[in-house]
Amino acid sequence: MIIALSGGVGGAKLSFGLSQVVAPDDLKIIVNTGDDFEHMGLHVSPDIDTVCYTLAKIANPKTGWGLVDETWKFMHATERLGGPTWFQLGDQDLATHVLRTERLRLGHSLSDITRDFSQRLGLTCAIIPMSDDPVRTEVDSSLGRLKFQDYFVRHHCEPVVTKIIYQGIERAVPSDSFTQALSDSRLKLIVFCPSNPFLSLDPILHLPGIAQRVRDSKAKVVAVSPIIGNAAVKGPAAKMLQELGMQVSAYEIARYYQDLLDCIFIDKIDAHLTPLIEALGVKVVVSSILMKDDADRTRLAREVLEYSV
Amino acid sequence: MIIALSGGVGGAKLSFGLSQVVAPDDLKIIVNTGDDFEHMGLHVSPDIDTVCYTLAKIANPKTGWGLVDETWKFMHATERLGGPTWFQLGDQDLATHVLRTERLRLGHSLSDITRDFSQRLGLTCAIIPMSDDPVRTEVDSSLGRLKFQDYFVRHHCEPVVTKIIYQGIERAVPSDSFTQALSDSRLKLIVFCPSNPFLSLDPILHLPGIAQRVRDSKAKVVAVSPIIGNAAVKGPAAKMLQELGMQVSAYEIARYYQDLLDCIFIDKIDAHLTPLIEALGVKVVVSSILMKDDADRTRLAREVLEYSV
Repeated sequence: MIIALSGGVGGAKLSFGLSQVVAPDDLKIIVNTGDDFEHMGLHVSPDIDTVCYTLAKIANPKTGWGLVDETWKFMHATERLGGPTWFQLGDQDLATHVLRTERLRLGHSLSDITRDFSQRLGLTCAIIPMSDDPVRTEVDSSLGRLKFQDYFVRHHCEPVVTKIIYQGIERAVPSDSFTQALSDSRLKLIVFCPSNPFLSLDPILHLPGIAQRVRDSKAKVVAVSPIIGNAAVKGPAAKMLQELGMQVSAYEIARYYQDLLDCIFIDKIDAHLTPLIEALGVKVVVSSILMKDDADRTRLAREVLEYSV
Repeated sequence: MIIALSGGVGGAKLSFGLSQVVAPDDLKIIVNTGDDFEHMGLHVSPDIDTVCYTLAKIANPKTGWGLVDETWKFMHATERLGGPTWFQLGDQDLATHVLRTERLRLGHSLSDITRDFSQRLGLTCAIIPMSDDPVRTEVDSSLGRLKFQDYFVRHHCEPVVTKIIYQGIERAVPSDSFTQALSDSRLKLIVFCPSNPFLSLDPILHLPGIAQRVRDSKAKVVAVSPIIGNAAVKGPAAKMLQELGMQVSAYEIARYYQDLLDCIFIDKIDAHLTPLIEALGVKVVVSSILMKDDADRTRLAREVLEYSV
């Protein structure tokens, strides 16, 4: 049995690969909900949707978010009525948000709703929100305290980040399915997908008790570096590392999570970092970790899997 | 100054005509909200939207509801996720419902929201919800008690109606703009648009105090019959008249509202009813009251207007 911790795009890619090489019943994908927010009265869960859409092969391959063959009539009509247009909601994507919001208001849990939606989309493995309680990532920045989507979408990650805050995390209970998966005696491997450590993995790992349970687990803990060379594949990870006074390198990722990790997958171009990382007590697998297509995703997932055997 | 009482399609047509021949500041269109309901967590106001879209010339001319050039991606995605599909929400139309719902939740009144939306759509006359309080039309029928949209859309008006109920009407306060319009010393004419008496006009007229104020008003009160010959132009008005043990005729409309009306416009093919109606103390104008195009709407509106001078 395998747990994958995932944010959006990069996490979704490796999760897709894992879903191709792991039996559905043995794969539990735990997804960050720190990016969730209310927009136009609708509950939006960007990372859950990206993971579900990617695994269902209906994700937009160009944007990294939203649905393929999307249309934007709703946004145009919203603009005509003077509504907000800084956050794009596609016509099809909107069904997810409207139905989710209604069910949350009726008292359903995000876990139940996500399970139902992912099954409707034909997925057979478990997509599990990290918590059914609200956790809201915010950043202290050169523009002051910003809610995550204000930083990420409205301000295009331009403000300099000095601190990351996970509002509500002290009171957030990890979701039942998450803790059950961590307690499962069959658990062999915990994978940190190549997601932003501050925006995607930390919200999951900072949930009460989770880091300790990962540390104590008998399962192998393996990360795939979100940093290749001195850049992130996508998103603000590199920029944030820099702003927080850290190096931009796979080594820094290994160092940051050294007390949790057994192993880290780094890219071939970073092979020279191997001795440095292994000096931290973290094993290294050098591979091609840039996932350009489905074949890359599946191959990398298989390599990660083989490590745990 | 003119007040028009309107439901959806037929009311919207005459309201459009009035908007072409009355100065914007002198026209107050009071719209039925008894059809309003919550669907998928969204507040839908069918008659307000039909009136706004019709006056803005963006209504779908074929359906009588919704927007022209509408697309249905949201509905397809909703179906994929197992959501309800019996009530159609178009991709553009959805912006109205989402934005309205959000503003209602923020505490804005339906009147304020409707004023804002209608201005955004370029309208200059006042579209006024009959009340900012919820009134919900229901019917007792051969299928038992049904909420309005269940009767109207889900069951295609097929159940036999024995009684109409306006839930909440005793506690509903007519909207400020409505009562101000009724108190305006410049008020010359109150028009009952050719809308369903039970589903569109009665919810307005049964609001506390309204029928009395219409009766007491010095303004002329003129109806345009929604019945031509022994049929309704659109909708279940004829079927309901029959089921409620009434005649299906313009005469019956005049009789039903005889204590409120000064005059009723009936169609040429109903000219023979004139003496019968005038015996009720209601004057008759015989005209072509079927509005097939914008020219018909404007001509009929002008004729109604001329009656009041």
